Amino acid sequence: MVYRLSELAARLGMPWEGPDDPEIRGVAGFEDAGPGDLTFAADRRRENGLDGTLAAAVVARPGVPSPLPVLRADDPRAAFTQILALYAPPLARVFPDGRHPTAVVDPTARLAADVALGPYCVVGPGAVIGAGSRLGPHVVVEADAVLGERCLLHAAAQVRERCILGDEVILHGGAVVGSDGFGYHPGRAGLVKIPQIGIVVLGARVEVGANTCIDRATTGVTRVGEGTKLDNLVQIAHNVSVGRHCAISAQTGISGSCRLGDGVTVGGQVGMADHLALGDGVKVAAKSGITRDVPAGQSIFGYPAIEFRKGFRVVALTHRLPELFQRLARVEAALGRRREGKDD
Amino acid sequence: MVYRLSELAARLGMPWEGPDDPEIRGVAGFEDAGPGDLTFAADRRRENGLDGTLAAAVVARPGVPSPLPVLRADDPRAAFTQILALYAPPLARVFPDGRHPTAVVDPTARLAADVALGPYCVVGPGAVIGAGSRLGPHVVVEADAVLGERCLLHAAAQVRERCILGDEVILHGGAVVGSDGFGYHPGRAGLVKIPQIGIVVLGARVEVGANTCIDRATTGVTRVGEGTKLDNLVQIAHNVSVGRHCAISAQTGISGSCRLGDGVTVGGQVGMADHLALGDGVKVAAKSGITRDVPAGQSIFGYPAIEFRKGFRVVALTHRLPELFQRLARVEAALGRRREGKDD
Amino acid sequence: MVYRLSELAARLGMPWEGPDDPEIRGVAGFEDAGPGDLTFAADRRRENGLDGTLAAAVVARPGVPSPLPVLRADDPRAAFTQILALYAPPLARVFPDGRHPTAVVDPTARLAADVALGPYCVVGPGAVIGAGSRLGPHVVVEADAVLGERCLLHAAAQVRERCILGDEVILHGGAVVGSDGFGYHPGRAGLVKIPQIGIVVLGARVEVGANTCIDRATTGVTRVGEGTKLDNLVQIAHNVSVGRHCAISAQTGISGSCRLGDGVTVGGQVGMADHLALGDGVKVAAKSGITRDVPAGQSIFGYPAIEFRKGFRVVALTHRLPELFQRLARVEAALGRRREGKDD
Repeated sequence: MVYRLSELAARLGMPWEGPDDPEIRGVAGFEDAGPGDLTFAADRRRENGLDGTLAAAVVARPGVPSPLPVLRADDPRAAFTQILALYAPPLARVFPDGRHPTAVVDPTARLAADVALGPYCVVGPGAVIGAGSRLGPHVVVEADAVLGERCLLHAAAQVRERCILGDEVILHGGAVVGSDGFGYHPGRAGLVKIPQIGIVVLGARVEVGANTCIDRATTGVTRVGEGTKLDNLVQIAHNVSVGRHCAISAQTGISGSCRLGDGVTVGGQVGMADHLALGDGVKVAAKSGITRDVPAGQSIFGYPAIEFRKGFRVVALTHRLPELFQRLARVEAALGRRREGKDD
Repeated sequence: MVYRLSELAARLGMPWEGPDDPEIRGVAGFEDAGPGDLTFAADRRRENGLDGTLAAAVVARPGVPSPLPVLRADDPRAAFTQILALYAPPLARVFPDGRHPTAVVDPTARLAADVALGPYCVVGPGAVIGAGSRLGPHVVVEADAVLGERCLLHAAAQVRERCILGDEVILHGGAVVGSDGFGYHPGRAGLVKIPQIGIVVLGARVEVGANTCIDRATTGVTRVGEGTKLDNLVQIAHNVSVGRHCAISAQTGISGSCRLGDGVTVGGQVGMADHLALGDGVKVAAKSGITRDVPAGQSIFGYPAIEFRKGFRVVALTHRLPELFQRLARVEAALGRRREGKDD
Repeated sequence: MVYRLSELAARLGMPWEGPDDPEIRGVAGFEDAGPGDLTFAADRRRENGLDGTLAAAVVARPGVPSPLPVLRADDPRAAFTQILALYAPPLARVFPDGRHPTAVVDPTARLAADVALGPYCVVGPGAVIGAGSRLGPHVVVEADAVLGERCLLHAAAQVRERCILGDEVILHGGAVVGSDGFGYHPGRAGLVKIPQIGIVVLGARVEVGANTCIDRATTGVTRVGEGTKLDNLVQIAHNVSVGRHCAISAQTGISGSCRLGDGVTVGGQVGMADHLALGDGVKVAAKSGITRDVPAGQSIFGYPAIEFRKGFRVVALTHRLPELFQRLARVEAALGRRREGKDD
């Protein structure tokens, strides 16, 4: 994939300027860009460092002086994202068109004509897969599961029975949608498994990271709303409801029956106790442990998580505990000396 | 699956009462139940709210007044669990009977006649699988592994060579039993891998969550006792021994050679240093980090984990550090004023 | 696998002594060793306990008095590691020679003649696999990926398109190399996916644990250096660079664009904020959360992580907060009494 800068400008409908019209052979971050690369400058530091880059051209805001050929965009980062897509390998290189002859599709499954199935895919009885969806090698779609249109399921992703995926859902390698919730009750001979007969429903444009697990509901639905993105190795327990347009970072765990609003942002390795409600727009700092409901718009940190600035202040003061103990000891000594009549 | 309430009562051997005998089309939690659903009331709040539910019928304790048709059970939750099983899809819808023609079974493996194998299962040389066990698509049972009777292995679960599973073990999707322990020793040219030649033994009725990993022992056995349940994304390191009837929540990690007693309960995202011993009945709060042995029956919290109530008190006081610094500063100021003769 | 002690001595080039030359049927840790086993004594306590073991023979340092037949080694642990390899099952029992007829290899892939492919392996177009590499069942190597020589990929490990593995890399079951990085930017209709078109490069002798995930770079390379070992369920985000000979324990997460030097040791469940630099030889205690750069050679602990001894001192003092509040209250009371003229 090689484009002249003028071609990129034409495809994206952006103006360009420059002493010449270089061939752009690749795209790279500002610090890594070499000859032939296009890069972007989205902040003052990079805008002032344009004469130091080896890149062939740059995406920059209008008016930023550039010694290099330049594509003009009000939001260089967003423009760069569009250009990245032009340099991605074609989808059919990774998800070839058609159904590989080794794919096992139950005769009662209903697949749109153009669904792409990689080697050794398994599609169970009663499953439905919408137009334009592509399944990589070893993907498993179990009985009666439903996938929308233009979904991408990477190698060995699995969707268990009766779960439902909206349009344009992406599952990364090894993701598990619909595993049993972790539900038992104590019996005479040990823990008794509570059958998990609910399902998982993922809204449109949900993305699920590699080896992330989403448990089916005990009864009813475990739900992830439209546009929400889950990173790798995330755990979503049974009967959780995550709202729309949330971003949940790697290795976070959400316990049973939690309810997250829309636009919630959660850092990595966060944990939540069960049955909590987080309002719209809540932001959770990495590694926090949430033990109570959080009102909309609040930012939180710590374990138990509290308001963000207070949480950071507490931690900073924790680091001053050695000083605190010393100061207290001095105070005690001073009082003791007075008590003994030795003060001053 | 539709049953009349009277049929459910007959199947479970429970009394029922009601103005009519409704058809029960589904089962649902108290808050989610709609028309046609059976639900249950296991606490005072729900018992008092029976006139607010849309459910067709309810499971409740004897004597609880009910405007709805009611199934009577001393333990409504346990009764509901039994009923859930009646509404689960039949096992053969998810794990069809028989051996799929694409399953690859080594001629030296020994499988009971009724073992069910999904598409693309692989069973290695010398492996043994007991009667009534069912393997989903893409399950791998490697050389010389042994599975008991009535095991359920979901899609892409894997059991590595020579590992042993008792009867009625459940492995969820992507679970790995028998990966190498993380053992190296420093050599001249870097870390030298210590061969991990031990095995994993899972007792009867162990359940292993999706994408959970259990490492084989360096020598000897990594053991998980009868009836113990592991949630998703749990890490069990080499030479660990977990007792019977334990419950270990998602994303917890147990380091090498730890020994857990029976009936241990561990919250999510807990970590344990290596070579620790936890006695019977220990309870560990979520996100704790355990750095020393824990006597039987103790509940612990924090990092390093300490006795539960003390740990929570410490955390609560941590949140009062800003106040503490202010109070100390006032004390210092008061003493300073005195020292300078300005007090009072 | 049974060897006489004298045979082991000859194979390893070590001296042996003993009243007899026993058959060694297995190898075991000091506490677990039974009759017929070889064990090792690498510390004073075990050296003094040799008359208490049931083992048939022991590896011990020269000069340590032994009532048992003994193999002499300056480093008994290292010698024992070599012996473990002799008792491991032959590689071909787990990774049979040859290409299983069900392996799907694209005609444009280039594989060395002796590459071993398990059942249902999938090797995509343009992929390259070096001599002596062995792939277990269900391994996926996607388009244009490159594997070096003598790599071992366990069941269901996957390498996504264009990623590169050096020689003697080991991937454990379910490991994902090359999943998309977690990159989005806010758009009018929600989060917009930033195409992740970079790759992953793993150096020689890298080992990747079960269900560990390594994300491809947005542009450029996510890199793990030669000889580095990653435990199970680790998350390596896009554009991270891990140096050589590092050891990263289970469930640790490294956020985007972090740079780790050589010989870095990281405990389990550690998290790192993005864009951090850790110098050579840094040691990170388990469960730490790293929020700033760390100079070479430093040991750190806590969240935010600080110098190790200071971090442990802070935690110890945290546990004394109840005492601190009591002491402060006493001081305040004493001052109050004075202020009211009631002191002494």
